[in-house]
Amino acid sequence: MPLHLDIRSPDFAERFEAFLGTKREVSEDVSRAVADIVAEVRARGDAALIDYSRRFDRIDLTDAGIRVTEGEIDAAVAIADPKTLEALTLAHERIRSHHARQLPESGRYVDAIGVELGHRWTPVDAVGLYVPGGTAAYPSSVLMNAVPAKVAGVDRLAMVVPAPDGVLNPLVLAAARLAGVDEVYRVGGAQAVAALAYGTQTIAPVAKIVGPGNAYVAAAKRQVFGTVGIDMIAGPSEVLVIADGEQNPDWIAADLLAQAEHDTAAQSILLTDSPALARAVEAAVERQLATLPRRDIAAASWADFGLIIHLTALADAPALVDRIAPEHLEILCADDEGLAAKIRHAGAIFLGAHTPEAIGDYVGGSNHVLPTARSARFSSGLGVLDFMKRTSILKCGPDQLRALGPAAIAIGEAEGLGAHARSVAIRLNL
Amino acid sequence: MPLHLDIRSPDFAERFEAFLGTKREVSEDVSRAVADIVAEVRARGDAALIDYSRRFDRIDLTDAGIRVTEGEIDAAVAIADPKTLEALTLAHERIRSHHARQLPESGRYVDAIGVELGHRWTPVDAVGLYVPGGTAAYPSSVLMNAVPAKVAGVDRLAMVVPAPDGVLNPLVLAAARLAGVDEVYRVGGAQAVAALAYGTQTIAPVAKIVGPGNAYVAAAKRQVFGTVGIDMIAGPSEVLVIADGEQNPDWIAADLLAQAEHDTAAQSILLTDSPALARAVEAAVERQLATLPRRDIAAASWADFGLIIHLTALADAPALVDRIAPEHLEILCADDEGLAAKIRHAGAIFLGAHTPEAIGDYVGGSNHVLPTARSARFSSGLGVLDFMKRTSILKCGPDQLRALGPAAIAIGEAEGLGAHARSVAIRLNL
Repeated sequence: MPLHLDIRSPDFAERFEAFLGTKREVSEDVSRAVADIVAEVRARGDAALIDYSRRFDRIDLTDAGIRVTEGEIDAAVAIADPKTLEALTLAHERIRSHHARQLPESGRYVDAIGVELGHRWTPVDAVGLYVPGGTAAYPSSVLMNAVPAKVAGVDRLAMVVPAPDGVLNPLVLAAARLAGVDEVYRVGGAQAVAALAYGTQTIAPVAKIVGPGNAYVAAAKRQVFGTVGIDMIAGPSEVLVIADGEQNPDWIAADLLAQAEHDTAAQSILLTDSPALARAVEAAVERQLATLPRRDIAAASWADFGLIIHLTALADAPALVDRIAPEHLEILCADDEGLAAKIRHAGAIFLGAHTPEAIGDYVGGSNHVLPTARSARFSSGLGVLDFMKRTSILKCGPDQLRALGPAAIAIGEAEGLGAHARSVAIRLNL
Repeated sequence: MPLHLDIRSPDFAERFEAFLGTKREVSEDVSRAVADIVAEVRARGDAALIDYSRRFDRIDLTDAGIRVTEGEIDAAVAIADPKTLEALTLAHERIRSHHARQLPESGRYVDAIGVELGHRWTPVDAVGLYVPGGTAAYPSSVLMNAVPAKVAGVDRLAMVVPAPDGVLNPLVLAAARLAGVDEVYRVGGAQAVAALAYGTQTIAPVAKIVGPGNAYVAAAKRQVFGTVGIDMIAGPSEVLVIADGEQNPDWIAADLLAQAEHDTAAQSILLTDSPALARAVEAAVERQLATLPRRDIAAASWADFGLIIHLTALADAPALVDRIAPEHLEILCADDEGLAAKIRHAGAIFLGAHTPEAIGDYVGGSNHVLPTARSARFSSGLGVLDFMKRTSILKCGPDQLRALGPAAIAIGEAEGLGAHARSVAIRLNL
């Protein structure tokens, strides 16, 4: 049974605070082990990749090859279910077209005293994409990570994916082909992150690494940060649904379970002002669980981390939502737009009863790589800007230098940086 | 004497590669010590801050107070040199007005099948700003970090700055006042980062931490990343000057020294096609060093990390510059714009002989917090976007769900996520 909190309870504030502090993941400290793996890959390159893959993935890369060949990808595409391929093709086109609108503009202007200021956006040259293996190998995630990179103009997109016991998911390879991934390597874990960051004989180094992974992958990304750029560190996923009493409880139950089935550490939260709806949703969750393929995972998530907050009115919701800063926020009520406008912290908002989060996960066009574990307070979903960088541009002529120079000299001297001051003064014969 | 490389030498490629691999900083591994400090501050709050400040900064915060009072800031402003204050006020206004142009636009559109897609930018609620103490306490850096946050709309900007032996730089406090910093605390080091991330009795937690610091500060930021957002990890600074034979060697020497005086690990690089200019610049550096207040630091940086690359023609420069990806790039030649257009990786570009980097450091208006140590390959200078985050918005009606639903169901089933598929199917009576 999920936790119930009622905003009218005298101990609500205290219990809500305790809920916010709940850790859903045991954070395994693997940083020492990962540091060793990274050092080995830096020192021994491919040989280290081969050793670790034998040990962790039970695969001999001297036979299979580190790089997945174009022929292997052709074969994967050939055996993929045509209906699924068609769906992925639609998803790819919608994601591409939505992300194309995120391309930033470079610009230049001249200010009142004649100084030219500007900025120029350029793509990162080479990006590494980590894709988890095994059950969490999702073709949709390949699209969501690869498409914004390609839209940004990244020249070289190198994907790594572990092949436990030699097995690769053909749909993951098909999605890589669709998205224009340039190179695919069958390596995973911290060793794959190290290879992307520092390069090996087979894998050229990249400038930025994105994509989700387990504790080893996350620790490796943290350690190579600085040598390369990284994206956020993904935690377990969550959904928060705000619903009034007029909604269909079966639909809401289905949405809560779609989140819960990801992972036993996933979290599904319902905020409602209708006790009747809350009861109906709970009953529907139990009913639907019975026939769910991943019912053990979903049931554990719902029992351990499920939460129903009973509100006096939906107007109570925004303040609570902003504290939770959910990755996914569904709003199902008469004035969904009005409520959405009052909320500041959420990774993605899904408006209305006909926008289940699963549409956004796959085919809506927006990105499903979103900030988890309250990090929507300070970060954004993945987008085109994550694969670009901005160079600032400044140009003064003699008149502008004369106008600004004395202030620069004053600050340089005040900071004890005499050569800074002199580099201006010498041009002004001061 | 700086290193000389000539692009015409048979071993140039090899020596250039070796140069790129040179580490200018001994990366001290302080992660264990920092983990202890962070854990102590989480467990004991203010008491831990008081203990560490006594030990590392020789200051008793039980007397001085953790928070710097408004009265202390008033007093600092009162004793600040009026000419410097005026210069900082000009700098503040120019930085503010330039960064105001970076404010992003939220947007919404309806696609061909009627799906509404959009995104909304909102500021981070609370930001922590780390300011180094001692000799590296620069009021200009306070402006460069604080102004973009305030332009973004950050409600609460909390600054931490160590007060070794009780001493604070009055200009740093004056700059904080100018920039609208809301709270100032006299704590530094890893303990200050931990306090900002987790909060103590006196310091409320923030959602993002920015600002440069020593190895302890950098390691602490890396460790709290995820709980809060962080900016890039700053390394030693560098400048690359491209110049043709027509330039004034004294001006270029002054610019190279302005970089070198920062730090013995700073780096100044000259690329030229004129052997005569290279000789004249080298001679001018020696002359100017003699009268430089920070000549020991600048001389060590120039001797250890200074570099002159002799080109056949300036057209050789872009490929080399992109490998180096310098933090600061000055271009002094007839066709500065044409050369700039061919370069992809640089933190900031300063065009023409009348734009010494020091103008950009202080009063140009663009930000001086820029990607160091080749990280311009994948990251940007600090800006307004670093203090905002984007929420994506998606809205389907029944027709759009009917159009997209079957593809979402197909992908959900292919990924083995039955509840995802069902959350769509249940709405379509499938």
